Amino acid sequence: MDAAEFRRHGHEIIDWIADYLEHADRYPVMARTRPGEIRDLIPASAPEAGEDMERIFADFQRDILPGVTHWNHPRFFAYFPANNSGPSILGELLSAGLGVNAMLWQTSPAATELEERVVSWLAQLVGIPDSFSGVIQDTASTATLCALLCAREKTTAFRTNERGAVGGDTLRIYASGEAHSSITKGARIAGFGADNVVAVGIDGDRALDPGDLAARIEADLAAGLTPCAVVATVGTTGCTAIDPVGLIGPVARRHNLWLHVDAALAGTAAILPEKRWLFNGLAHADSVVFNPHKWMFTNFDCSAYFVRDPEHLERTMAIHPEYLKTGRDREVTNYMDWGIQLGRRFRALKLWFVLRNFGARKIREMVAAHIALANDFAAWVDAAPDWERLAPVPVNTVCFRCKPAGMTNEDELAALNREILDRVNQAGVIYLTHTRLDEVFTLRLSVGQTRTTAEHVATAWTELQKAAAG
Amino acid sequence: MDAAEFRRHGHEIIDWIADYLEHADRYPVMARTRPGEIRDLIPASAPEAGEDMERIFADFQRDILPGVTHWNHPRFFAYFPANNSGPSILGELLSAGLGVNAMLWQTSPAATELEERVVSWLAQLVGIPDSFSGVIQDTASTATLCALLCAREKTTAFRTNERGAVGGDTLRIYASGEAHSSITKGARIAGFGADNVVAVGIDGDRALDPGDLAARIEADLAAGLTPCAVVATVGTTGCTAIDPVGLIGPVARRHNLWLHVDAALAGTAAILPEKRWLFNGLAHADSVVFNPHKWMFTNFDCSAYFVRDPEHLERTMAIHPEYLKTGRDREVTNYMDWGIQLGRRFRALKLWFVLRNFGARKIREMVAAHIALANDFAAWVDAAPDWERLAPVPVNTVCFRCKPAGMTNEDELAALNREILDRVNQAGVIYLTHTRLDEVFTLRLSVGQTRTTAEHVATAWTELQKAAAG
Repeated sequence: MDAAEFRRHGHEIIDWIADYLEHADRYPVMARTRPGEIRDLIPASAPEAGEDMERIFADFQRDILPGVTHWNHPRFFAYFPANNSGPSILGELLSAGLGVNAMLWQTSPAATELEERVVSWLAQLVGIPDSFSGVIQDTASTATLCALLCAREKTTAFRTNERGAVGGDTLRIYASGEAHSSITKGARIAGFGADNVVAVGIDGDRALDPGDLAARIEADLAAGLTPCAVVATVGTTGCTAIDPVGLIGPVARRHNLWLHVDAALAGTAAILPEKRWLFNGLAHADSVVFNPHKWMFTNFDCSAYFVRDPEHLERTMAIHPEYLKTGRDREVTNYMDWGIQLGRRFRALKLWFVLRNFGARKIREMVAAHIALANDFAAWVDAAPDWERLAPVPVNTVCFRCKPAGMTNEDELAALNREILDRVNQAGVIYLTHTRLDEVFTLRLSVGQTRTTAEHVATAWTELQKAAAG
Repeated sequence: MDAAEFRRHGHEIIDWIADYLEHADRYPVMARTRPGEIRDLIPASAPEAGEDMERIFADFQRDILPGVTHWNHPRFFAYFPANNSGPSILGELLSAGLGVNAMLWQTSPAATELEERVVSWLAQLVGIPDSFSGVIQDTASTATLCALLCAREKTTAFRTNERGAVGGDTLRIYASGEAHSSITKGARIAGFGADNVVAVGIDGDRALDPGDLAARIEADLAAGLTPCAVVATVGTTGCTAIDPVGLIGPVARRHNLWLHVDAALAGTAAILPEKRWLFNGLAHADSVVFNPHKWMFTNFDCSAYFVRDPEHLERTMAIHPEYLKTGRDREVTNYMDWGIQLGRRFRALKLWFVLRNFGARKIREMVAAHIALANDFAAWVDAAPDWERLAPVPVNTVCFRCKPAGMTNEDELAALNREILDRVNQAGVIYLTHTRLDEVFTLRLSVGQTRTTAEHVATAWTELQKAAAG
């Protein structure tokens, strides 16, 4: 592809994206294709001769697009937001064009130094203490794995890294039963074992109970086990419950445990003065993660991970083969030493574009608007006799179900709500997903896509009522 | 940013990238900025009010660009290629625009099904057996970690995932001392411990010695240790040594060890009939990784990981919280179960664009040309009395040094070659990096950027000779 072709097709794709973002609501939110339908449209082998980009892009629109679930859709209320914006897409484009590998300072000093700056901007915006140092990672799963590794090495004085876990102590991780699956996954990967993730009890709002945490730590100590890490969740995936970091911190400190705060979704909300309490007690934490790719208008992937002690992170993660040594290593940050992967994209660019083009004020306004919309929806649920809200709404997610008068059998209620979910998702106007709270089949409405407005949330409510009516 | 602005700035950035890719040779290859120089140009805090994209992009060109090391430069001969191309950048752009999370089939069926197809295309192109199933991961570091986890769980019958490593057997990993640092890093992360990575002896070409492998396994068994995995490297990072997979395989099989093949760089070369031997013996392997983002014109990140037994991979990695369950889970591939992270970008799109727009024939021609250029350079080194080649050139990388007649002191030779390296890199016309082979300070010239031609390699030789002359 020569420069002229690149320009032509590049302009065409930019124009297509501009239209797409403006009119994503023309598509059904959730793809309706059957398993294998898209695969069967794609030839079994790569072409021997090159094909024109015109044809490839036409095939994209005809064959691929119908199988896309539209995360940019303003009526996407499923899972969690994965929001996006013009400046973010342009930043990603520029990063792809530069194609730098930001593994070492020397392999692109600007990539490292811009990253240092923008993560500091983020920390200031959401109230993460100055004393923390940040790095961009791909996902909160990876960041949480890093935190568990740091905890493991702290507890074992770096012996596990060198000698392995065999013959050591049985290390225990504490998190509420509502915490994210990445904790159990990280515990498996890092050799703790899933059985050593202790499900701490929760209160009525599904937040971790610090009293139960203390009791479980004491019980483990009495049993000869070794407490190692606590993960507090600020905004659980299921119902955005907020674990009380300020009360958990002293317990963790007393037992010298690593305290990791998983604020993947809700951390963004701390940009609002009225939500700054979400991060209360962060001074007790050793590490914290939140995802600008979830709710700060930055396209996936872009997860911001902060640690109190970067030297400990480096000591846990760093390996220095000869070919990666440079004359600058003592003066600079080599971000390859701050995570799992060696290679790293230049992700700071898109975050810089977003933070500058939006500005802090606009981000605050949009995040506040999403929270207000979620609260509007919650109020409609509360006011409707046949509907029931199942959890508080501290940020952007409403947990609820249809509960017609007189229907008390839990199996019937689950079947009804599953039916409603399938019906609205198949209709394609909105897309929601579910969870279970105390085994109760629960619908979730998560507000946070860039273009979601009051009208879209109102439509969701109408669609759900229609679906419930059959 | 409204649609009109997005179009305007998008066109502008596309045009800038088109110019940049065509004229990357106008820049010094390695950035010349001092530590902190870029950081000091960036304000300490995010702006409160949004800023115009015009200004942001102007700042990028003025403040950021001088700190960029140009991986797209045709005279970038450092580390390994991270090559790039028009169709790849456009695929990444489109993927950013769609913003889908390809974690589950349902979250975008087309992302999963296109990925299944394009990894199968790749396997066919480089001769990975039909019986393997593929997935796109971010980096070979991650893929190798997955392989080590699969090995660990196979050897411990999934006990480590559940109960942790404590109290189990001491598991051993075998790889040559030339193998990549990601193996030791993976061994640390997965709880094996770095001490349990056994450095197997090498032959005169720095390839793993299967006889020594067998002897070390026997010795470990005699010592009560538990052999678990072998990593064979097809193209080591230092000097692209090729471990003999066909001879290693039977040793691994005999002891029921997991055999992972790390072909991150050199795997691409197997697209050539004359280099198909690189993957000889792959039928013995359990997993193999190679990186289209290194040498298949696909921008970072895009690493292709193949496994013989996807059910084993899923059983090792999968965790299914309620909120991620869908009605289709038994009929489809949910790629979140094939790796470390939960969230996944739609990377298949750029690979599909590249493979179709180039076509297999063009990729073969370009890879063959890179190999021929590396061999030309090797021949010049061989013919020059004051220079010495330090390793064979099976693919794209030449290891060499300046060795003036009469200079035999190793410290002096190392100082001279370090001086040459610093001189050429600072001059900015070319960029090379170094390694050590048997403690010998070694210059490396790695050919593989998309636009590198005979002229660029000739310039490298001239620059090196100039630098050696002082």
